[in-house]
Amino acid sequence: MAQKPGLPTGTRDLSSHEVTKRNYIMNVMRRHFECFGYQPIETPSFENASTLMGKYGDEGDRLIFKILNSGNYFYDKNRIQLPDSLEALLTHSAETISLEQRVELNRFTAKISDKALRYDLTVPFARYVVMHQNELALPFKRYQMQPVWRADKPQKGRFREFYQCDADVVGSTSLWQEVELLQLYDAVFHDLGLHGVTLKLNNRKVLSGIAEVIGASDKLIDFTVALDKLDKIGEAGVKDEMLAKGIPAAALEKVQPLFSFSGSFSQKLTQLETLLHTSEIGLKGVEELRFIGAQVEKLGLQQATLELDVTLARGLNYYTGAIVEVAAPKGVQMGSIGGGGRYDDLTGIFGLKNVSGVGISFGLDRIYLVLEELNLFPETLRTAPQFLFLNLGYNEAEVAMQAITALRRQGISAELYPDAANWDKQFKYAEKRGVPFVIRSIEQEVYSVKNLATGEVLACSWEQLMAL
Amino acid sequence: MAQKPGLPTGTRDLSSHEVTKRNYIMNVMRRHFECFGYQPIETPSFENASTLMGKYGDEGDRLIFKILNSGNYFYDKNRIQLPDSLEALLTHSAETISLEQRVELNRFTAKISDKALRYDLTVPFARYVVMHQNELALPFKRYQMQPVWRADKPQKGRFREFYQCDADVVGSTSLWQEVELLQLYDAVFHDLGLHGVTLKLNNRKVLSGIAEVIGASDKLIDFTVALDKLDKIGEAGVKDEMLAKGIPAAALEKVQPLFSFSGSFSQKLTQLETLLHTSEIGLKGVEELRFIGAQVEKLGLQQATLELDVTLARGLNYYTGAIVEVAAPKGVQMGSIGGGGRYDDLTGIFGLKNVSGVGISFGLDRIYLVLEELNLFPETLRTAPQFLFLNLGYNEAEVAMQAITALRRQGISAELYPDAANWDKQFKYAEKRGVPFVIRSIEQEVYSVKNLATGEVLACSWEQLMAL
Repeated sequence: MAQKPGLPTGTRDLSSHEVTKRNYIMNVMRRHFECFGYQPIETPSFENASTLMGKYGDEGDRLIFKILNSGNYFYDKNRIQLPDSLEALLTHSAETISLEQRVELNRFTAKISDKALRYDLTVPFARYVVMHQNELALPFKRYQMQPVWRADKPQKGRFREFYQCDADVVGSTSLWQEVELLQLYDAVFHDLGLHGVTLKLNNRKVLSGIAEVIGASDKLIDFTVALDKLDKIGEAGVKDEMLAKGIPAAALEKVQPLFSFSGSFSQKLTQLETLLHTSEIGLKGVEELRFIGAQVEKLGLQQATLELDVTLARGLNYYTGAIVEVAAPKGVQMGSIGGGGRYDDLTGIFGLKNVSGVGISFGLDRIYLVLEELNLFPETLRTAPQFLFLNLGYNEAEVAMQAITALRRQGISAELYPDAANWDKQFKYAEKRGVPFVIRSIEQEVYSVKNLATGEVLACSWEQLMAL
Repeated sequence: MAQKPGLPTGTRDLSSHEVTKRNYIMNVMRRHFECFGYQPIETPSFENASTLMGKYGDEGDRLIFKILNSGNYFYDKNRIQLPDSLEALLTHSAETISLEQRVELNRFTAKISDKALRYDLTVPFARYVVMHQNELALPFKRYQMQPVWRADKPQKGRFREFYQCDADVVGSTSLWQEVELLQLYDAVFHDLGLHGVTLKLNNRKVLSGIAEVIGASDKLIDFTVALDKLDKIGEAGVKDEMLAKGIPAAALEKVQPLFSFSGSFSQKLTQLETLLHTSEIGLKGVEELRFIGAQVEKLGLQQATLELDVTLARGLNYYTGAIVEVAAPKGVQMGSIGGGGRYDDLTGIFGLKNVSGVGISFGLDRIYLVLEELNLFPETLRTAPQFLFLNLGYNEAEVAMQAITALRRQGISAELYPDAANWDKQFKYAEKRGVPFVIRSIEQEVYSVKNLATGEVLACSWEQLMAL
């Protein structure tokens, strides 16, 4: 009995057209990453489970794919004792399981699985830097484009395997890095022909400052989580949520200006500075933003707009300085297509202290969808060869293969239809593949060429063929 | 307590130099794959375990990495009963475990794991063809370059994660495909500058024919396994092994000519034809070899040599026609750097009958090692930017960033040292990175450039800088 083939939930095949378009985007990124001095690295798809677990919070731990120890395991000489109550545990549902039981389950999982699939590129990068610190020239500028895996609930456009495309620098606190990373976003999107993206910039120190000014430093996370929703739930909604989280009404009055900031980047910054004039950390954040904003303005962006967005929080616990997010051009229904920020102690978890890092990420799948929607993929992207030579039988095929071989050695793509099938079938194949030119016959070094787009038939010399 | 970071057994990090060299090889392959009309596809890293299990033999099943069902699993409403004897089983070693117990273990594994990491690219390709048969134009020529995972015992130069680079055609039995795939090997190795590779060609039908002639069709596998070792154990060794496997001495006499084939491809073929004159299937194999050999000769190879090797067997159970293997240039200690063949019923396992396929694979890691050994990587491969601008302080950095931005917009790679550190430190960084040119200062639009290779210092105008 043949198996009916299928794919695991949340995974997908990529067709030739999709691969070609994705490679186009990644090649543009790669070119600019390298132009900006970032170097490629690659890390293994799976890491020791201990490297990943506990780095992404409880929710992250649950979403990490674990790999079963290979066959040998069960036959290992180190005898494994299963917890007595395991079988009972396995028959319980999530709702009825106790914390102790959960710990026991996790302990069991750890026994049968000591490896896990990469969940992002940042933790493996931190591990890489620590393991290779003696070989690396710091500051180390690296880019990495590899798949990651998450056991998220699959949704439309969200997959359990997807690529991350990251550029990070570690080993310097210089704000020139932030300036350059904003330029890098601009360069990539400019090259992709995607005009009108907005680079939203904020700073974690500004968020700390605001919380300090309103006397809610202990509620920094609640405060920023609520503020982050301004786009979605509006001013009233944000205030309601803050009140519900126990931030006093009097405190909210103090930050009223936050909701009415207006004008250019530097005008907004002046308003922010006034608001934060009593907070040392807040003013440090303003100063950083001012340097970055001024330098980006002097150097100029090719198409993107830099915007100060004090509501931007992203992975707050993670970032310590700049926070950036890229919004797709207005009119395109799409969340952020990139984001990043500065984190002061990335490698500390692996024992290397005081190494500051800053980095950005490009959302490949979303950029793909935006380019598709705006019809921005170059028309020259093609998965079919330039020429298909019809197969009219043994002798004709021999002559065709001589021409095909010569074309290929000139770097021109060409193929022979492999069987001497009827013309109709061969033309249908050419059309389905999207081949531009079909060579119908070769007689005395004259090539009869049909242009499938126009229907036109030409009689070409070899030189004319090469020039098509 | 910080964790000491490490990597799972059999995995590796790839440095910038390694990634750059690997990308160089893969780009050469990609260019020729596409020039020959092959289209890229990508399949998910993990498949349903049922798609992979049972396709690679018992040994293969054992080497497939299985993924633990995600966290949710244990909390699933479908209650899982563990086999009563599981705990006892887990305390047994491989030697004492019975077949029934093994089946029970496998059943347990299947309950906690329904996904597995890709083991090769061929089975996923077969699944792809069957699932997408209505969208594809047959014959379908695809290439695929993605990692695969095997729980092999790690050895020097053998990893548990490695790339496969495959080109296959399905949907045609035309021998022009074999001809073209041999040309493809030649084109890629020629472009890589790797001269002197040998393309060894055989045909499964010839092997069947030989077994038939000596009256040992029932011992075809033993026979070919022994013959395959001629290189290693010599004529006497092969004969001893055949005798030990129960192939009669009289039969061996009949194939004596096998051991003394000599001359060109077509001369060897004539000797083979004589030997096989009573075997219909053997003569069919000879005929196929003759067509392929003659066409390859007429079209010409750029650097490779085609050789008839009747001892070549490879994955015998798999192949049904041509069998090919690529030997590195003489003098390089390296096993085969590529291989492939024709398989007549690849997609049958997934319910699509009568689709013949033929394909080849490139051994990326081995090709890398060969190019490294022969010093064949282009000197222009570099992971460092063309220019490093020293950072002499805020004002100088501002001027430098103007120049850097302009260079990058011309596609020229450049970077600023991010901090105003002392010269020595900055020069050391430039040297460690392998930057060719350091810009020491910019005064009145004159760039003071140090060539790190020669030590020479130049005073350049903008135009001279761009032309370096």
